[in-house]
Amino acid sequence: MHKEIITLKNKPRILSSASVVGKKEREGPLGAYFDLTEDDIKFGQKTYEAAESECQRLALNMALHKAGLRHDELSVVISGDLINQCTSSTYGLIDLDVPYLGIFGACSTCAEGLLIGSMLIDGGYFYRAGIATSSHFCTAERQFRTPIEYGGQRTPTAQWTVTGSGAFILGQGEECLPYIDEVLPGKVFDKGIKDAANMGAAMAPAAADTLLRFFSQSDMKPSDFNLIVTGDLGVEGLSITRELTKLDGLVLGPEYDDCGCLVYDRQKQDVHAGGSGCGCSAVVTAGYIMDRFKNGGYKNVLLLGTGALMSPMTIQQGNSIAAVAHLVHIKAD
Amino acid sequence: MHKEIITLKNKPRILSSASVVGKKEREGPLGAYFDLTEDDIKFGQKTYEAAESECQRLALNMALHKAGLRHDELSVVISGDLINQCTSSTYGLIDLDVPYLGIFGACSTCAEGLLIGSMLIDGGYFYRAGIATSSHFCTAERQFRTPIEYGGQRTPTAQWTVTGSGAFILGQGEECLPYIDEVLPGKVFDKGIKDAANMGAAMAPAAADTLLRFFSQSDMKPSDFNLIVTGDLGVEGLSITRELTKLDGLVLGPEYDDCGCLVYDRQKQDVHAGGSGCGCSAVVTAGYIMDRFKNGGYKNVLLLGTGALMSPMTIQQGNSIAAVAHLVHIKAD
Repeated sequence: MHKEIITLKNKPRILSSASVVGKKEREGPLGAYFDLTEDDIKFGQKTYEAAESECQRLALNMALHKAGLRHDELSVVISGDLINQCTSSTYGLIDLDVPYLGIFGACSTCAEGLLIGSMLIDGGYFYRAGIATSSHFCTAERQFRTPIEYGGQRTPTAQWTVTGSGAFILGQGEECLPYIDEVLPGKVFDKGIKDAANMGAAMAPAAADTLLRFFSQSDMKPSDFNLIVTGDLGVEGLSITRELTKLDGLVLGPEYDDCGCLVYDRQKQDVHAGGSGCGCSAVVTAGYIMDRFKNGGYKNVLLLGTGALMSPMTIQQGNSIAAVAHLVHIKAD
Repeated sequence: MHKEIITLKNKPRILSSASVVGKKEREGPLGAYFDLTEDDIKFGQKTYEAAESECQRLALNMALHKAGLRHDELSVVISGDLINQCTSSTYGLIDLDVPYLGIFGACSTCAEGLLIGSMLIDGGYFYRAGIATSSHFCTAERQFRTPIEYGGQRTPTAQWTVTGSGAFILGQGEECLPYIDEVLPGKVFDKGIKDAANMGAAMAPAAADTLLRFFSQSDMKPSDFNLIVTGDLGVEGLSITRELTKLDGLVLGPEYDDCGCLVYDRQKQDVHAGGSGCGCSAVVTAGYIMDRFKNGGYKNVLLLGTGALMSPMTIQQGNSIAAVAHLVHIKAD
């Protein structure tokens, strides 16, 4: 078998990151790590969709500001979101006047963006890249499940879509900054889960596959990492991932966690299985994990962006939920 | 101004390509150039969406076959389509067992895939990449406009979504094969067009901007190319693009055409302004243009994938249509 892990030779660095979230996320355990929080669920806009666009615009602007850069110093923006046709990204970033590459990996979009962006920076194809992604509880809920006003009861495996956006600026930079050392793109898995309120179970096989492929080809073991974190499996998907990897001999210890479990207090915040959405792994990585690299002594983190590649139509037509998990190894010297 | 055109140093080659289309496309002027045509609008499947997935699966399989390769000899598949959440791509390629990167550029997806894929092959990050994209008249019409059964009258500027899929295999290969020499990612433009039946006008400013940026930085002039071809502007968008570029001093001669104008006989096939959809530029490039490189003496082609980044929701909410145009310079020695 040829080696699938892609090692980046020129240490593409995360020059800055920024996270913008709503009220519920601010009230969660990681609230203090986010750069900007907004009580207005509409972010001052007319629609939830425009709110999500605004959220993404704010996050990218703030990341640029933190890096001391202007828009026109970006070579490219790589961006995507959950809303049909990547609406939030397109309309949020429209005034940038910067080349734009749209991507779609459902909730794995943050990791997919870091993966593609880091390779293109590493190879010198772009000098600096902005990576941005977002989700919004109200846009996702009404697109994928039921109208907000319906107020349907949520099942125990349901997750709560994070309202928030995370953005990163990648480029060559100072040696003290974290960099992307390795990436491993995910394969698509479909194990027959049809319940749009149980995405953790649908995504766990993809996460397990990517983790197993990584550790079978890497010299590192799970305990070498400060954190191995999946994007938004929630408690249900997290425990399935532990079991699936264990069946193949990969035991994940206390270093393994999930952004969807970290972002909310599941006991107090009524979020059932945890957080989800493109914004989930994006704000936890841009806010919390990047802070831990700066102030918490983190040296090695494995981020596994997990995405349930369903659409409202595939659910209506009775298809099961396909999923993917992209891996990014973030490192500091 | 720094140079925005990205020159690829290692000549990532188009090892093979394949095109699969429906009946109407076979009956058009380029009919003889397509590899596989299917009279059944459902491609033997239960739904139009499943038909589009099948179409994409067939195209990628056929491209692999023509290159003498198996699935597991691909390092990655880069794919996307028009249907919400890239359904056709995800479900069409699910059995591949190959890492998958989803992209979204609306109808520019073919060029976006070639652009990203060629850089990642050029840099050695992947050994071989499959690029696939598709569209289907019935899936697009009912998603973006009206139910098929409604049978609404079409306006003169309306375009006909191509039912088809084009796939390419990129990698290092023999010197006789065409290669991707340069790429230039597009910026997002929104000039206020709100008519979903006039996408040509919405996309033309993006196409003109990318063309103007290319020729202001390139040593080549339009007449150096065998063909400069936009993705799916139709007659309306093509003439606007000619006018917009002319205003800035770039005169496009007879070498400039549009895949949407080439793919159908507008007089006989009742397609109004021409063809459109992700599949439009994909099948024209994979079928016709690749044949011209092999048998027609083509040495230089500029492909501008054009995409209208609207969604049904943005139209319903009264937003205007944002657009992008990605450029790929295909060359042969």
